[in-house]
Amino acid sequence: MRGAVLHAPGDIRVEEREEPRILLPTDAIIQLSATCICGSDLWPYRGIAAVTGPSPMGHEYVGTVQEVGSEVNDIRPGQFVIGSFFASDNTCPICQAGYQTSCLHREPIGGLGAQAEYLRVPLADGTLVATPDIPADDLIPGLLAASDVLGTGWFGAVAAEVGPGKTVAVVGDGAVGLLAVLAAKRLGAERIIAMSRHEPRQKLAAHYGATHIVTERGDDGVTRIKDLTDGLGAHSVIEAVGTQESMMQAIRSTRAGGHLGFVGVAHDVQLPGDELFFSHVHLHGGPAPVRRYLPELIDLIWTRQIDPGKVFDLSLPLEQAAEGYQAMDERRAIKVLLQP
Amino acid sequence: MRGAVLHAPGDIRVEEREEPRILLPTDAIIQLSATCICGSDLWPYRGIAAVTGPSPMGHEYVGTVQEVGSEVNDIRPGQFVIGSFFASDNTCPICQAGYQTSCLHREPIGGLGAQAEYLRVPLADGTLVATPDIPADDLIPGLLAASDVLGTGWFGAVAAEVGPGKTVAVVGDGAVGLLAVLAAKRLGAERIIAMSRHEPRQKLAAHYGATHIVTERGDDGVTRIKDLTDGLGAHSVIEAVGTQESMMQAIRSTRAGGHLGFVGVAHDVQLPGDELFFSHVHLHGGPAPVRRYLPELIDLIWTRQIDPGKVFDLSLPLEQAAEGYQAMDERRAIKVLLQP
Repeated sequence: MRGAVLHAPGDIRVEEREEPRILLPTDAIIQLSATCICGSDLWPYRGIAAVTGPSPMGHEYVGTVQEVGSEVNDIRPGQFVIGSFFASDNTCPICQAGYQTSCLHREPIGGLGAQAEYLRVPLADGTLVATPDIPADDLIPGLLAASDVLGTGWFGAVAAEVGPGKTVAVVGDGAVGLLAVLAAKRLGAERIIAMSRHEPRQKLAAHYGATHIVTERGDDGVTRIKDLTDGLGAHSVIEAVGTQESMMQAIRSTRAGGHLGFVGVAHDVQLPGDELFFSHVHLHGGPAPVRRYLPELIDLIWTRQIDPGKVFDLSLPLEQAAEGYQAMDERRAIKVLLQP
Repeated sequence: MRGAVLHAPGDIRVEEREEPRILLPTDAIIQLSATCICGSDLWPYRGIAAVTGPSPMGHEYVGTVQEVGSEVNDIRPGQFVIGSFFASDNTCPICQAGYQTSCLHREPIGGLGAQAEYLRVPLADGTLVATPDIPADDLIPGLLAASDVLGTGWFGAVAAEVGPGKTVAVVGDGAVGLLAVLAAKRLGAERIIAMSRHEPRQKLAAHYGATHIVTERGDDGVTRIKDLTDGLGAHSVIEAVGTQESMMQAIRSTRAGGHLGFVGVAHDVQLPGDELFFSHVHLHGGPAPVRRYLPELIDLIWTRQIDPGKVFDLSLPLEQAAEGYQAMDERRAIKVLLQP
């Protein structure tokens, strides 16, 4: 089969890869209808995360079940399914508490390479959620977004305790930040401040429910948030970048007693204990337990109440993955969908 | 009047200080029945926090109102009152949200020096809570504990979302840690693990409700907590020290999705963003908004449902404050009560 493989920073190739097969009785094989490139794929692509030999890429996927192992009971061949970037059994105490990305038996999908024609999904019953039927073509981008970026933005909003009457600030205007705006709107936020200096992203943020746009960054951005909140800061802040600057901006934008949900994968971040102590902020985040939200998110997409697929502003055949990586690296595209 | 003044590290003297008087119409003057030495007073005493000239010491206090300013309406002369280490108006949006130690008009009591015969309390109506009557003598240590260490331990337990069915670990066996054990017990914790290697403190922890004692520290302590929790970590962890080691021990002792309440004043702490990200821990803490809990805590003490005063294992006349500091510095005493 064809699949995208990163050979070295900047060197992504679509080449022949061995077709996956059932290795464990809890596995499923799915034929991918769509896959995509994640902001986190850019870390190794840019050489910031180490690349050690050729690596199959991709961890976002939707598709049709081809085959299941002998111990798979709920997922059946022919179903259209969505899973997240960690396989999880969905039965251990950590999964039951809603933290499937810390499942005691979790397995990263990233190493299996979802930017391909076929994918082996471990722990299929725990990991995959089937749609009510085979989806219409125009629903596929939205369902694919649910595999990671929508669920991640949603978790950020839940971790930030977004709710009615609250002012929410979103740090980061990538797909996750934009879908955090959508989540904040669905969860009833009164005001949603999107921090973005890119016009197409500002427009999408407004489409998803942002009531204010702040273009300043760092402490200037904090000042703008304070100006908009009687000097207090936002009740809820969602951090969707993962740098030292964005985390400090997020902490300082949150009012005392407020909540910060951080979902940008942290890179070289050190949080000063004394500032955190005196900030009185609630802090929660990490790899989003997308599985927790999948049934609800699939329903919202299926019934066309939300349209998260709009974050895909470039669609390419899988064979042109290299062009997709380049477009995201240069911020010409928010998020690139790949068609196997 | 007599009051304790720190002149240099290790040099605490009880000397004549000017008697406080009403400076603002929202002030009250109280005659102190009891005051005490806080773990945080040891930072400047040990020279770890800078000492810049003679500093009146102390921020924990109970006593009788002598005089109030013209704009004080609820607090009246003759009442027996308790306040916390920050004066707060109790009306601003941050106070109303329960974060009185981040009140928009807060004033630290520390600079006013509560280890003395009299104390000026700013924002008296917002800061002070009166007891139902003049307390019996044996209730005074408990009421004094409510001024800081009890309320701080209580906030740690609330921040750690202690509740029925949960396993709670407490890092730190000072007065705050021990009273966090008491709070965890009152809040319904199923198992309470106190981390302590000092026998008298272990005994008091057990008296307050600890079901397990762990003597190991650092990563060895983490291993013991995991052993006691099926490898998962505690649901709720309360951090009551404030060092890098204790914070990392606390984070690593908390299960994914669990809650860490940190109330030890952070000194030279840097939290690694990536570890925090992948820990999936909820983090909340800071200077405890003791005022939020004072009415409830006073009632529990008044009706003798709790006895937090046991943390005072040494009682001295104010004149012997220097001996009290020494006893706490050398860990011969858990907490020292001073009688003006």
